[in-house]
Parts: sequence; C-alpha cells; structure tokens
Amino acid sequence: MKKSTKISLSEKEIPRQWYNIVADMPNKPLPPLHPVTREPIGPDALAAVFPMELIKQEVSAERYIDIPDEVLDLYKVYRPSPMFRAVNLEKAIGTRSKIYYKYEGGNYSGSHKTNTAIAQAYYNKKEGIKRITTETGAGQWGSALSYACNHFGLELLVFMVRVSYTQKPGRKLLMNSYNAKVVPSPSTMTEAGRKILEKDPDSPGSLGIAISEAMEIAVQDPYTKYSLGSVLNHVCLHQTIIGQEALLQMEKAGDYPDVVIGCFGGGSNFSGIAFPFIRENIVNDRKTRFVTVEPSSCPKLTKGKFMYDFGDTAGMTPLLPMFTLGHNFVPEKIHAGGLRYHGAGVLVSQLLKDGFIEAKAKMQRECFEGGVLFARTEGILPAPESNYAIAGALDEARKADLEGISKTILFNLSGHGHFDISSYEKYFEGNLPDHEMTTAEVEATISKIELPD
Amino acid sequence: MKKSTKISLSEKEIPRQWYNIVADMPNKPLPPLHPVTREPIGPDALAAVFPMELIKQEVSAERYIDIPDEVLDLYKVYRPSPMFRAVNLEKAIGTRSKIYYKYEGGNYSGSHKTNTAIAQAYYNKKEGIKRITTETGAGQWGSALSYACNHFGLELLVFMVRVSYTQKPGRKLLMNSYNAKVVPSPSTMTEAGRKILEKDPDSPGSLGIAISEAMEIAVQDPYTKYSLGSVLNHVCLHQTIIGQEALLQMEKAGDYPDVVIGCFGGGSNFSGIAFPFIRENIVNDRKTRFVTVEPSSCPKLTKGKFMYDFGDTAGMTPLLPMFTLGHNFVPEKIHAGGLRYHGAGVLVSQLLKDGFIEAKAKMQRECFEGGVLFARTEGILPAPESNYAIAGALDEARKADLEGISKTILFNLSGHGHFDISSYEKYFEGNLPDHEMTTAEVEATISKIELPD
Repeated sequence: MKKSTKISLSEKEIPRQWYNIVADMPNKPLPPLHPVTREPIGPDALAAVFPMELIKQEVSAERYIDIPDEVLDLYKVYRPSPMFRAVNLEKAIGTRSKIYYKYEGGNYSGSHKTNTAIAQAYYNKKEGIKRITTETGAGQWGSALSYACNHFGLELLVFMVRVSYTQKPGRKLLMNSYNAKVVPSPSTMTEAGRKILEKDPDSPGSLGIAISEAMEIAVQDPYTKYSLGSVLNHVCLHQTIIGQEALLQMEKAGDYPDVVIGCFGGGSNFSGIAFPFIRENIVNDRKTRFVTVEPSSCPKLTKGKFMYDFGDTAGMTPLLPMFTLGHNFVPEKIHAGGLRYHGAGVLVSQLLKDGFIEAKAKMQRECFEGGVLFARTEGILPAPESNYAIAGALDEARKADLEGISKTILFNLSGHGHFDISSYEKYFEGNLPDHEMTTAEVEATISKIELPD
Repeated sequence: MKKSTKISLSEKEIPRQWYNIVADMPNKPLPPLHPVTREPIGPDALAAVFPMELIKQEVSAERYIDIPDEVLDLYKVYRPSPMFRAVNLEKAIGTRSKIYYKYEGGNYSGSHKTNTAIAQAYYNKKEGIKRITTETGAGQWGSALSYACNHFGLELLVFMVRVSYTQKPGRKLLMNSYNAKVVPSPSTMTEAGRKILEKDPDSPGSLGIAISEAMEIAVQDPYTKYSLGSVLNHVCLHQTIIGQEALLQMEKAGDYPDVVIGCFGGGSNFSGIAFPFIRENIVNDRKTRFVTVEPSSCPKLTKGKFMYDFGDTAGMTPLLPMFTLGHNFVPEKIHAGGLRYHGAGVLVSQLLKDGFIEAKAKMQRECFEGGVLFARTEGILPAPESNYAIAGALDEARKADLEGISKTILFNLSGHGHFDISSYEKYFEGNLPDHEMTTAEVEATISKIELPD
C-alpha cells in the first residue's frame, strides 16, 4: 500500500503553549502611540477595549505562553489539524517539487480563526465580561467568534462589512445559528457608522469602518469588550498553534520546508504558520523563505507605506507602526473574499521591514484558477482567501521547475470555501474581474491620511 | 485536564474490510425479480448498468469483503472519522443519558456519501468505464461522486432533482468545481424526462424520475455506467466502514450503545452505522435497539407497504422487495433536505420486517429545532437530513429521563449543513412548514402503482 499523504499527529502532540515571536525578534516592534500626545501608550490604555489577560499577551516578551486547559479542551475537538502532501496537485502541474499544506478548515466554523476565537472568548468570560462586539469582512472571523462566544455564554454583536452581508447570506446565517446578532456596517447604530452613511449612503463598508463601530459600542459599557480577528500580537500568538504543529508534522514527514506561504489580510494565518519556522531561521540557522500573498486590489505589504496609522477608520485605536494603505481605504466592491484590511499587523510589518519575509501581490482570477485546480486535485474547495496561498505555492513550484530544482513548499490552507460559492459562481461565469491598485492610487490614499496634530 | 470528548482512532485502525450483513441475516432478502417474467434475475441482468465487481458485491453472501488499496488510500485522507461524546448537548437538555455521535461530514464533499462514491468510481474505472451517470436529490451524493469521478478521471453526468437544483445552487456549483455536468431533472435529455414534462411542465422532480433519466443514458453506451448513492446492497456495504469504526471507538470510550440511530432516506447512512452493531446483537447476544428516523412527509418505513416495486419512476430497474410509497411518489416541495426517496433498501426492509430495527417518522420543524440546538452546543451545523437523527437521539434521551434511567445513545451525524443554509434561513424566518403524509394519502399513492402484468 502507498504511504498515506496525510501527516497526522496524536492528541498528545498538541502544543501546550503558544509561541511569541517578540522574544526572538532582533528588532523589537515599535510601541503603539497615543494619537494626540504621540507618547507610547501603556497597557492600561487598552483596558476599556480588551480584557487584561489579552492585553498582557499583547505586550508580552515571554517566548512561550501557556494555553489554558479550557482552551485546550476545545482545541482537542478539532486539533491537531491535518497536514497533507499534495501529491495529486503536484502530478497535475508536473512539478518535481514537493508541496505540503496544513489544513485549518476542518473545524466548526471552517477556518483558522477558530484558534483565536476560542482563546479570546475564554479570557473575556474569565474576567466577567457579558458581551463582545466585533467586525467581520467575509465572515470567517464572525463565524468563529460566534461559535466561541456561544460556547462560553457570551452575547455577540457582529458588524459585518455591508458588501459581504449582502453577497454572503450564508455566513450571516451561520452566525445566527450560533446565536450572534449580525448588523451590516456602516450602520445607524453608531456615530462612526452614521457619519459614513451621511457622506455615502451606499457605502459598501470596510473593515476599518466596522472596527470603529464595534469599538464605539464596546467602550460605552464596562461589561462589553471588543474583539479583533487578526492584526494584533495576541491574535498572531494564538495562531502559532498552527506552525508549531506543522513543525512536528514536517519532522514526521522527514522533510523541512524551503519556503512557507500564507495568504495575507491582517496577518494572522500567515503568522500562525510562519512564526515558529522563522524562529528556526533565527535560532537554528535554517534558511527557509517566508512569502505572504495579498490581493493586488489591496496591496498593503507590496505597495503600502510603513508608518504610524490608525487601525480603524474613525481613529479610535492607538497609532500603530505598520504597512498601510491608509485607514480610510475602501476596497473595490469587485474583490471577492477577505484580505481587505488596510493595514498589516505590527509584528509582520517589522519582520518584512527587517527582511525576514517576502511579500507578493496577485490578481484574483489567477488565484481562483489555482483554487479550482486544487479542488479538482486535492478535493477540498478552498476559501477565496486561501486561493492566494495556493497560487503562491504554484508560483514557487513552477519557478523551481524552470530552475531545474526541487523545492519543499509548505502553505497554509486557512479555510474552506463552502460559504463562498457565489464567488466561485462568478469565476465560472467569467464575471470575476481583476483589479490592481496602482502605486499612484496607493500614494493618493496614503496622502489622505489625517492624523491628529 | 478534562478527558477529551473526541474519541479518535489511528490510521492503522481503519478497517480493511467492509461488512456484509447478508451473511448474518437469519432471513435472507428476497431476490430482485424481472418485471415481466417475475422470475428472479441473475447478476448478468445488471451488467448493462453496473460494473461486474459491484454486481458481485450486490449479490454476495460473503461476510467480509476486502477494501482495495486504492480505495483505502483515499479513505485515509479523511478516515477514521471522529466520534464525539456530546457533553454540551447533554448538559443543555439536562439528561442523565450519554449521547455519542459519529461525524461523517469532515470530508471533501461533507457527508458519508464519500465512502461509497470512492469505491464505486474506483470499480468503474478499473473495468474501463469512461463515464458515469447518476441522480442526486439534495446534492450530497452528487457532490461526493463528482469528487470521486474527477479523482479517477471519469466523466460524470448528474441529474439533480429540479426543486433542489433551483433551491441549492451551492451544491450544483460544488459539483461543477469537481468537473461534473449537472442537469435539472426532469430534463428533455431523456425519454423518461420528456414524458414527465409533457404531463407536468412544472414538475419539481423526484429521485425516482432522476434515476430513470440517469439509467436511460447509461444503458445506451457500453462505456457509460450508472451509479446509485443509497438503497442498494453494495452501497450499504461500503458504508459499514462507519459502524465498524464506531465499534472500535465505543470500546475505546469504555461504553456500548443501548440504541443506535440514523436518519433514513434510502438507508445507506443508517445501514453504515447500524449493521456492524446489529451483527453484535445476532452473534454476541447484545441487546441494542436500532432506530431509523424518516420525515413525516416521506414515511416509507412507518406507513409504506412491504411489496415488490420499481426503484425508479419509469420502471427501468428490476422489481425489488421493499417498503415503498410507490415509485410514482413525488414529495411535497416544502420538504427541506434529502430523505425523499420513495423506497427503502432491500436489506433494511427485510430487517425491519424481521423486527431487528424500529422506524419512526418526525416533522421537519422539530428536527430543525434539534439541529440548531446541536449547532449551538456541539458547534457543527448539521445537514437537514442529519437533523432527523439528532431529533431521534433527543427523543431517546428525554424518554429515558422520564423513565428515570440513563441510556447510552449513539447516532450518525451523516453530514454538515454548509450548503443547506437556505433551509435554515426558512426555519429561522418561521417559513418552514410541517407536513405529514396521512395513511390515506399513502394508500392512495400505493394503489396507483402500476406493475407490468
């Protein structure tokens, strides 16, 4: 019998700690700044928004942080997640490279977001919080947090970017199934939302706007906190369970990746798979390359500017040092799937600046082509977001073939596309247009950034 | 740390053989008959429709049949499937019973149908077949066979019951993603379809009609065969991988079911989980009860008649001894989800007749209520079909509580509901009406059965 293409771990091999890359970064990230004083803010400044345990994780320099038993219990239901060698995909493109993928779609809500949703809901519950507000774009994050909040008995209010709310009723209904209240954003529930609607009643919304709305509600009540699904250090921390498992799985496969690839929105799935391998580069002198793949219509890492900017449109967050398209950025409506946030997480931004990782942008049609090829060969219909990672992996394999070499490629298949079938329909019908944001357009949006004097 | 609620098996524990219950049945099933001569038909009569290896399995009396390596290789990608103890569901209803479920939705196409789809595609490919035709109702079977045919390089033509084709574009698109051609049935492609459309241009279709269409195409070409997703002996055989794994998992859990429950359409998911446990009753004197749960709108086991009837509407199949509502049965449009076939598989029919299993029918709203409770407690959004099994399990737990006893309940969670979100939407909006087919209505449909003289 052939060797299985699945590389499994036993329940006992689930890592018991999250990995915090800050401990190993040669250049530590710059501090968040108060928007008016421009002084570094302390943990207390975040207390209105997040529970204290998550704030501690946000600013921690400890290398490893224990995963609480209650979180591990829920991880055990769907973790360890499987890794596969994509032999059928390899055969289809005739590559001599080896392609591996870690599959994070096999849980309740169908994406890696579950890993941090469980942790965030747990810490909020533990500190007596009754209600959480959040934003969601394509809906993976909202679904994951809905499941987790419902499990821990927390109310959840989700501001869903309006264009997705309209185009993806499936995700909204999944959130409803998990007891969450879902509101299209911009909404009239908040000052931030009303301001946007006054200027543009047809605003398709953006993650930046939805974050402003969710934060505005959260700060009004001490028993309500806000929760973010990507970007922040503690979110990336929770996702490192992916890469730590992947390290063990590559060892079981008797292999090691030459390149690790993740799609890129705010950075959480990429950080999750990459950070533990980046540590191997730093500490054990490995030479793996790390590649983020973002949409050409939202090119923050490839064309954005490294600067202090707000994390949300209304300017409620501290100023964060990151690659950004400007906090007023509104992505084109034609863009399918997530990965639409205007900025990149602080850790990834610093690592990109320091040359630890590479960034590339791709058009969506080519990514869907890769996703359909993947479904036809490997059997899993990928989330539109994950298609960017697939396309990145195919690029690496083809490049290696042209160079006459064989590479070991690992990518993160961050979620399934069961609720994104309307995007696939558009693709099959030839109605999925490409869009590339030009450098001039990026400069124009960045020049519009207004920071407080 | 708490004990995990997941009961896992290792890859090595995947059963290497399917279990054939015919070997252990005290009363063997009656033979299929030629519709005109009323003589038992031999295997050759099926050769125009199925490959020889599947025909051999259909009529086999061997207790165990080896699973080919090529099939096992694909099983290994998603098997063993997990079993869970539903502790959160138990807590929510405050039962003293223990509820376990086997989850078959964690594979490519999201249901147990994958188990037989892989096997059927494999045997067809091995015998040089180029193209397969099939029917699908809600779309689980069509999706599973699309994946499997694409994997083995076979063309697939799917006749999809029109009402589902219209209501569930997601399933159609998933099949397209796997390269299959999908046609709404009744269609104008076949004589059988045209006849129906002449009488009723707005026919919502039925599985019986779709089977007739698929068979009509298959018999016209020696390199085209037909494939069925439930009902037949070889289909139930392939599904026994579920119950055999479940036996091992119950042993690991240090428990044994007092009752085993499956939803019921043609019988494949129920047979899959139940047959290996029924063997334990027969051979090892276990006292487990076996309960099928079918929709009140399609009550073949609870109100149908045990008789010889056709498996399809046009009368192309042999006559089969089964519980049936009559091969002209067309289910009410309001019914959500699958489980709409007019007849029951021959093996299950005989076992019901002989008192090995119990049958019950339930209204769909109560089943959806159970499904939403399940999603909110256990985290998985179930297929509408699986909701019937959940509702059956809840009934058993509540009955035991009333009796002041604790039972060990095992049910088959046959699939996820990611592509059935429109049915949940109707449920949440209060637009999912109940319907019960009365005994008089059943008698009326059965009296219309026309068998050849």
